[in-house]
Amino acid sequence: MCHHCVMESVKAGMLSRRSFFKGTIAAAGAAALATTLPSRPLFAAETPKKAEDLTHEIWEQFPTYFGGQQLFIDQKFSHAKDTFNLNEWRISEHTGTHIDAPLHFTADGKSVAELPVEDLIAPLVVIDIRAKAAENPDAQVTPDDIKAWTSANGDLPEGAVVALLSGWGDHVATEKFRNVGDDGKTMHFPGFHVETAQLLIEQPSIKAIAVDTLSLDHGPSPDFIVHNTWLPSGRYGIEGVANLDKVPVKGATIVVGAPKIKGATGGPARIFALV
Amino acid sequence: MCHHCVMESVKAGMLSRRSFFKGTIAAAGAAALATTLPSRPLFAAETPKKAEDLTHEIWEQFPTYFGGQQLFIDQKFSHAKDTFNLNEWRISEHTGTHIDAPLHFTADGKSVAELPVEDLIAPLVVIDIRAKAAENPDAQVTPDDIKAWTSANGDLPEGAVVALLSGWGDHVATEKFRNVGDDGKTMHFPGFHVETAQLLIEQPSIKAIAVDTLSLDHGPSPDFIVHNTWLPSGRYGIEGVANLDKVPVKGATIVVGAPKIKGATGGPARIFALV
Repeated sequence: MCHHCVMESVKAGMLSRRSFFKGTIAAAGAAALATTLPSRPLFAAETPKKAEDLTHEIWEQFPTYFGGQQLFIDQKFSHAKDTFNLNEWRISEHTGTHIDAPLHFTADGKSVAELPVEDLIAPLVVIDIRAKAAENPDAQVTPDDIKAWTSANGDLPEGAVVALLSGWGDHVATEKFRNVGDDGKTMHFPGFHVETAQLLIEQPSIKAIAVDTLSLDHGPSPDFIVHNTWLPSGRYGIEGVANLDKVPVKGATIVVGAPKIKGATGGPARIFALV
Repeated sequence: MCHHCVMESVKAGMLSRRSFFKGTIAAAGAAALATTLPSRPLFAAETPKKAEDLTHEIWEQFPTYFGGQQLFIDQKFSHAKDTFNLNEWRISEHTGTHIDAPLHFTADGKSVAELPVEDLIAPLVVIDIRAKAAENPDAQVTPDDIKAWTSANGDLPEGAVVALLSGWGDHVATEKFRNVGDDGKTMHFPGFHVETAQLLIEQPSIKAIAVDTLSLDHGPSPDFIVHNTWLPSGRYGIEGVANLDKVPVKGATIVVGAPKIKGATGGPARIFALV
């Protein structure tokens, strides 16, 4: 499907699916359809008691979507010789636990540096599909998975970041993180289904989607359809999130330490969940 | 003064100054002298209401300590040609609003990635020396400045990050950020006085010191004495902090999104104050 066809298909899907969220999202979500968003609470719950690190350490051979090395560390000064240590990095913006800004899949969308600060702190929703991902590495977060979450936990919180917990974070140091199939090229890991991206776009307060895998799209995606649907809506994504199994599915607050480099289409981020 | 002499001077100074903090630091600070630190509250105050961005945007000509360019952006994919944008950065670890890890000035201290998460979230103390910095660009935070803060605000909070507000953040896009003098090489901007670093080291719970200038040491420092005193104590520093004039001198919580790159001696960080 060409890029134009994908976008037309997306728009058509959005129209036919408008009724889905009626009754399943917070009333405030409907109010947010107005031009001016209502001010939202910064924190999901009461004063947090502890912080969980949702960030993988990045080493030079950290697995990458394209397969090649994306971090190169060059020591410029050494303590033994110069009395201090200092390195220079060469690094792709899309390495490790990192952001996808709207600019990544648009001609002129927001860069990471342009994301509003209030979009970097949000109630965290965790959609746990570990059971089906263990059976099928190509599993996707579907609208039914969102429905199962709202049935158990109530409406999606205003201004949430919605994260996929597939269990793939456990595989980060192994071949299974990329999980290349028998054809030697197609990857197999979970991601969002495009219909889920469409549904979440209908709730304007939702700030971002996040995955514990290498891509918002599942491994075998031929067309980045989730990227092409979600990022042009002006919202951002997070890829390679760690430790989602250590936070509650509802009630934590995510703090996204996105790098503030001018014009960046993404970038390695330090991400915490405050619980 | 050679490195060894500096350290000997520091140790001597610490012994003679032990009495300073009696009565000026929280009682819990004394308890923290025990091997096991007591658990500390994550937040300075009640549930935060808003976030302030303490991070400067980094552009390629962002002013640097050494004077040369430290960020180079290379576009690898473009939306027009490839349907997505992606850049690669070449960047020094010590660029923009960034961390100094203990490893920066030690042979084998903690890297940024090894800093405990609980050290990256802390009560924020702002020491405002804007008045004297406006008179003298080489001004330093002295023990008297700390005393003035505690007289007005009570004991330093347990586990605080202590930040210098000199007003230098306003100069980031101008020559005055480096402020090179008539000799064509010596810089003139505020920093911490080594005796202040020594005093804060005596309160083991203090997690970091931060400056709104290019260096923990003030501009004319010939020997990085504050770096050589503070970082070997196992604590970290933050340089180039923005917007400290927009947060209260007491009561905010700093969240330090330090990059988690293996072996890093520092790195550009996204930093928030939750108020």
